[in-house]
Amino acid sequence: MKKFNFSAGPSTLPEEVLQQASEAILDLNKSGLSLIEISHRSKDFIAIMDESRALVKKLMKLDDDHEVLFLQGGASLQFLMAPLNFLKKGSKAAYIDSGNFASASIKEAKKIGFIDVLASSKEANYTYIPKNYEIPLDVDYLHLTSNNTVYGTEMHDFPETSVPLVCDMSSDILSKELNFNKFALIYAGAQKNIGPAGVTLVIVNKTLLGKTGRDLPSYLDYQVHISKESMANTPPVFAIYTTLLNLKWLEKQGGVSAAAERNKIKADLLYGEVDRNPLFRGVCEKVDRSLMNVCFFLNDEEKLKEKFDKMWKDSNIVGIGGYRSVGGYRASIYNAMPLEGVQTLVNVMKELEKTA
Amino acid sequence: MKKFNFSAGPSTLPEEVLQQASEAILDLNKSGLSLIEISHRSKDFIAIMDESRALVKKLMKLDDDHEVLFLQGGASLQFLMAPLNFLKKGSKAAYIDSGNFASASIKEAKKIGFIDVLASSKEANYTYIPKNYEIPLDVDYLHLTSNNTVYGTEMHDFPETSVPLVCDMSSDILSKELNFNKFALIYAGAQKNIGPAGVTLVIVNKTLLGKTGRDLPSYLDYQVHISKESMANTPPVFAIYTTLLNLKWLEKQGGVSAAAERNKIKADLLYGEVDRNPLFRGVCEKVDRSLMNVCFFLNDEEKLKEKFDKMWKDSNIVGIGGYRSVGGYRASIYNAMPLEGVQTLVNVMKELEKTA
Repeated sequence: MKKFNFSAGPSTLPEEVLQQASEAILDLNKSGLSLIEISHRSKDFIAIMDESRALVKKLMKLDDDHEVLFLQGGASLQFLMAPLNFLKKGSKAAYIDSGNFASASIKEAKKIGFIDVLASSKEANYTYIPKNYEIPLDVDYLHLTSNNTVYGTEMHDFPETSVPLVCDMSSDILSKELNFNKFALIYAGAQKNIGPAGVTLVIVNKTLLGKTGRDLPSYLDYQVHISKESMANTPPVFAIYTTLLNLKWLEKQGGVSAAAERNKIKADLLYGEVDRNPLFRGVCEKVDRSLMNVCFFLNDEEKLKEKFDKMWKDSNIVGIGGYRSVGGYRASIYNAMPLEGVQTLVNVMKELEKTA
Repeated sequence: MKKFNFSAGPSTLPEEVLQQASEAILDLNKSGLSLIEISHRSKDFIAIMDESRALVKKLMKLDDDHEVLFLQGGASLQFLMAPLNFLKKGSKAAYIDSGNFASASIKEAKKIGFIDVLASSKEANYTYIPKNYEIPLDVDYLHLTSNNTVYGTEMHDFPETSVPLVCDMSSDILSKELNFNKFALIYAGAQKNIGPAGVTLVIVNKTLLGKTGRDLPSYLDYQVHISKESMANTPPVFAIYTTLLNLKWLEKQGGVSAAAERNKIKADLLYGEVDRNPLFRGVCEKVDRSLMNVCFFLNDEEKLKEKFDKMWKDSNIVGIGGYRSVGGYRASIYNAMPLEGVQTLVNVMKELEKTA
């Protein structure tokens, strides 16, 4: 019996994507060869790469200034590549400290240049998204983190500004519609809504590149990857192919707007129960709640934790333990989590209330 | 019918590895979860990571000073990380220019510090391995590339020196026994003898780190990855697991020494035919011939290429086209290529001679 996997990332993928990926390991397109042993310069793989990039552009409605790259090293390497490619020598950039990954991105950027942290919610253990900060006009970019998996907060609005926006969208990309063309740079580790771990999606406005005065190492230079169409070196073949399968699944399900509707329904159902059920409470400010990661506490852990944990495990639920620095529970309900999974968890919460 | 895939990388993998990887995409260890949707912090994945690192140490007979890391970004990112971690500020390093990847590593290192290129075979289109150069004692390390896939040359001896050795072993690692403990740093993209594309094996002598005076970005700092046991960020789960399967296969086949014996037999068989058959000739100096990538030309391409190409394709052979800058043919015969595949190619070459 299929389990409902609420892990924060790597996370659940559609059953048909797993099936197709599994088959391609044995035989890709009836070629007699495995996906993972063909040359990345083969016609078959170049077609996979081209289709993947084109489908990201289509699903996100990207204009011609925006290039799609599939890189390695996760968002962690992008913490470094963002300032290297967008922060001019001697200039400064602005960051918002809205969670532990935002904080990590600031730490890396400070090794490259001057970083102005405009606002932070650290003093409240990152339980809200900082707002109402002033954006200086003399910064090269403003760096944002759109969703925080650890605390379950999400940016529901983006600042209107002439300053170029750089955003780590690792954990809510493709979950809702946005004008992605207004961003100078978007990056996202694949292992939530995009595909399996091992590839990083980068979307970059190429007209803004090449202005920092830095002589960059090749792998850290977006312009190198653009000129080589993400094939400057051997790409992570399996992760890109499985990403393509997952993007095709998303398209078949109606694309990003339809996913957004389903995500809203799932999140409303689960937050509704967290708020209604007197045994539970949410972790963060309601207005900033994430539609991807629903974090909540049991009010009386001492009395009920053991019982609740047994109940959800018995219901084929896995992966709802909270992050180590937060505790409690975290249910990650990315695009691939079916409503049935959320309903199952809600039923367990109701059952606990009845029997507690 | 299974094809014989002579691709240079990504390259052929053992059938049982493909089977096991394919199954794990659907269900890992009968857990009811896919390999690619479990958390990298789960007990199952931590066990995979630990076993992979331990098995590399065992197969390569590494001592306790040498740490095993699984990183992303390919050898290309190591071209940068090697000097960042081993080249002191204001100091210099020595490089040998033995091929196009060696040349690329020099280009990246020159962005970090002073690089002394001790010898190059570029003027002979890299058809031999430079030898008899003097190694200055005041360099922080000597960088070597042990095998060149493009031209089919391989280092059969390493210099005896007190200077720390850094080696890109992407295309011959695990193919023969060496005293790996004498190296300060070894790195290798996985997609030849290690596993699928998407992970880079790094072996580093940790006692030599932390001496450059550089404040490194986290992802580029070996010490960060060592302290986090290759989990500083989400690792490429699929590539690491499939690497583990492949390492287990290698161990079951008798380990590195047994692989070396098989590789010698395969290479002797194919080079023997290249030298015997009057229709063919080898690309590079015999003494430097690679046991992994056998490069050869047809003497009369105009007359025989079409016929030969049809013959090997009809024999279920794929991937023996030469690299674009070299032309001719290249048969990559890594650990996973069975003797039967090499024999099939040799038979086609003999058949061509008979019917030409």
